[in-house]
Amino acid sequence: MVEAGKHFSARASTLRSSKVRELLKWIGKDVISLGGGVPDPASFPMEEIKRIILDVIEDKGAAALQYAPTEGLDELRREIASFMTKRGVKAGEENVLVTSGSQEALELIARVFIDLGDPVVSENPTYLGAIQAFSVYEPRMVGIPMDEEGVRVDVLQKELRRFGGEGERVKLAYLIPTCQNPTGRTASLERRKVVLELAEEHDFLVVEDDPYSYFYLDGVEPPSLKSMDGGGRVIYVSTVSKILAPGLRLGWVVADEEIIEKLAIAKQSVTLQSPTLSMYVLLEALRRGLVERQLPRLKEIYRVRRDTMLEALEAYMPEGVRWTRPSGGMFVWVEAPERVDMDALLPVALREYKVAYVPGSSFHVDGGGRNTARLSFSYPPLDAIREGVARLARLIAEHAAPRACVLEA
Amino acid sequence: MVEAGKHFSARASTLRSSKVRELLKWIGKDVISLGGGVPDPASFPMEEIKRIILDVIEDKGAAALQYAPTEGLDELRREIASFMTKRGVKAGEENVLVTSGSQEALELIARVFIDLGDPVVSENPTYLGAIQAFSVYEPRMVGIPMDEEGVRVDVLQKELRRFGGEGERVKLAYLIPTCQNPTGRTASLERRKVVLELAEEHDFLVVEDDPYSYFYLDGVEPPSLKSMDGGGRVIYVSTVSKILAPGLRLGWVVADEEIIEKLAIAKQSVTLQSPTLSMYVLLEALRRGLVERQLPRLKEIYRVRRDTMLEALEAYMPEGVRWTRPSGGMFVWVEAPERVDMDALLPVALREYKVAYVPGSSFHVDGGGRNTARLSFSYPPLDAIREGVARLARLIAEHAAPRACVLEA
Repeated sequence: MVEAGKHFSARASTLRSSKVRELLKWIGKDVISLGGGVPDPASFPMEEIKRIILDVIEDKGAAALQYAPTEGLDELRREIASFMTKRGVKAGEENVLVTSGSQEALELIARVFIDLGDPVVSENPTYLGAIQAFSVYEPRMVGIPMDEEGVRVDVLQKELRRFGGEGERVKLAYLIPTCQNPTGRTASLERRKVVLELAEEHDFLVVEDDPYSYFYLDGVEPPSLKSMDGGGRVIYVSTVSKILAPGLRLGWVVADEEIIEKLAIAKQSVTLQSPTLSMYVLLEALRRGLVERQLPRLKEIYRVRRDTMLEALEAYMPEGVRWTRPSGGMFVWVEAPERVDMDALLPVALREYKVAYVPGSSFHVDGGGRNTARLSFSYPPLDAIREGVARLARLIAEHAAPRACVLEA
Repeated sequence: MVEAGKHFSARASTLRSSKVRELLKWIGKDVISLGGGVPDPASFPMEEIKRIILDVIEDKGAAALQYAPTEGLDELRREIASFMTKRGVKAGEENVLVTSGSQEALELIARVFIDLGDPVVSENPTYLGAIQAFSVYEPRMVGIPMDEEGVRVDVLQKELRRFGGEGERVKLAYLIPTCQNPTGRTASLERRKVVLELAEEHDFLVVEDDPYSYFYLDGVEPPSLKSMDGGGRVIYVSTVSKILAPGLRLGWVVADEEIIEKLAIAKQSVTLQSPTLSMYVLLEALRRGLVERQLPRLKEIYRVRRDTMLEALEAYMPEGVRWTRPSGGMFVWVEAPERVDMDALLPVALREYKVAYVPGSSFHVDGGGRNTARLSFSYPPLDAIREGVARLARLIAEHAAPRACVLEA
């Protein structure tokens, strides 16, 4: 038999598997998973979606199963543009590309913008699906730390000046300004303004990844970068995975027409088009106001889940463990004491403590974060959230004690 | 406003748009399109698919809208393996990857196998979606001509020896052995054997793209390369686009487990997973034997269409035009006299003759074929096929006449 391995491309040999996805495979029935960001299926408006699917099949017939344009159905692009306009983003049909989930959007953006060695800045930690998509095109990822007000624009500015001083230019900034994945943090209005000013000054584009602002939990969400974007520098990415249903595999990009056209050409050779039936379902869900009606429901569901996790952390975590208080999204970010290696502890957590999490190093662009973890509150029942956090607390407590030092000879 | 263009990657600047897709945009109501390979919607088993969708929503509920594994639903992978086994391919669940159409399969294969400058052989002309997917990774495409028995293995052998002599190795052979796109030609059993022998001898892998063998029109179809593959060298790719419905966006790969695993890791960062609802629909369509029952219907529909086009070509085409007699698929390949430039004539065809085709140069890996075109018989009504061919015949006749020579000073 052939050894396939020796035929792989250099790229393939370095392809990193997502630890989140691998996790899903290891999990037995007795393990509580605080791993993947899987939405609560109780949030899916099943009866209304069922009604819509029936109507689509009845009204559209064969068209619902036929080829459709690479850019997405014209009517759907218009509906998405109007959905965005209601949220302060000026967009027409020509500014919208429908994608196969936001993952494909990130792949296409990477393909269209990143050359080998291009500096790309992001929050650190950041969404691992973006790290995976970008890394295929071999940029230099530069991580910018965050605090309670979001990305540290002072550090960003310093990095931009450093690159400028070396005659180089940052190509893209990849940011999740609202309810960031993995930290749940939200950038303040002031920070948002500075990011856009820096983009003008240093001539880079901003990819705004925005899956979570639609069910922001702490009052009125700050405006999207795209809604503040006077210079056409923001490429906005979102998805129906968290606000309607992930199995439809639909996301969208809003950007200048020239960018949308180039992304569409790239999409021809990746998936040709997004699933037609799903597109008609989303079209009707938008037309009937179903997506809008979903948002208050989502807020209710995820507020209770978030608060349950935060209370459990408060109740169970040992001294020396810190965590974020997310303004929405699906995740809490946990920092254990420096000497606790959450990567190394994962198999122990699964086997002995029967709890799963995603090691925080997966979200780092600089190899750091081995004492961190991302916990998801989106999927387990509330009791399981409490018990999962309790188990994790025991794991950390029992591995955080300083070890006896052996003096090397 | 920012000039997005100057931020594009070098790769993006060379991205070629598919002329087939562009064509779809230009076509007015009075133009007969012999362009894209769009299936006859009358071939979709609407009533049965409708029933299946209802049952899936009823039985699976939220699971039909939830995330699913990157590799595809386990049950679906098993059903596809068993579907393939009935066609002589030994495969288990672990040998199957579900993709978002076969286009994504080609993208993933290119990503996982092609390094810059790798020699990749294919039939010439070949499927333009494959050329697009591969070219992003910058292989050296080497086109092998065909005759009535399929790919010219004598030329393939010569090329392989030439590369061997230069200390290089062909990485992949991309072949569509049955009802090839764009020519409709089918490789003989003897040629298939030689391809596999050469793969062993010269240590390359074979990508077998097989969308059309399922409704082969001329008797019993030859066995797939994959069914003859003793050494695990064949990566088999197919799609439901032509045998069930393209709007589902589902394809599949059958290959050795090591290859499937690597393709799945690559898929994580491209689309994460294929659409869940579509996967459940295909699962049920396979379980209920709907796909099997479709095949005789497809043969009837496309035989009449093919024969109608062949009769029209016979009736209308002027002297000096040649065409293939496809053993299935959706296309006839036309070669006009050498001096007729089908690329340059396309706008004339659309505006004045009101007929669309795909210029054959799009399918060439070597810049050749400007006097060729691909005609699709899959979609237009039979009358339109006849009239479309008649219009094309007039176009060619009126542009094939030798021009007066102007002697340059």
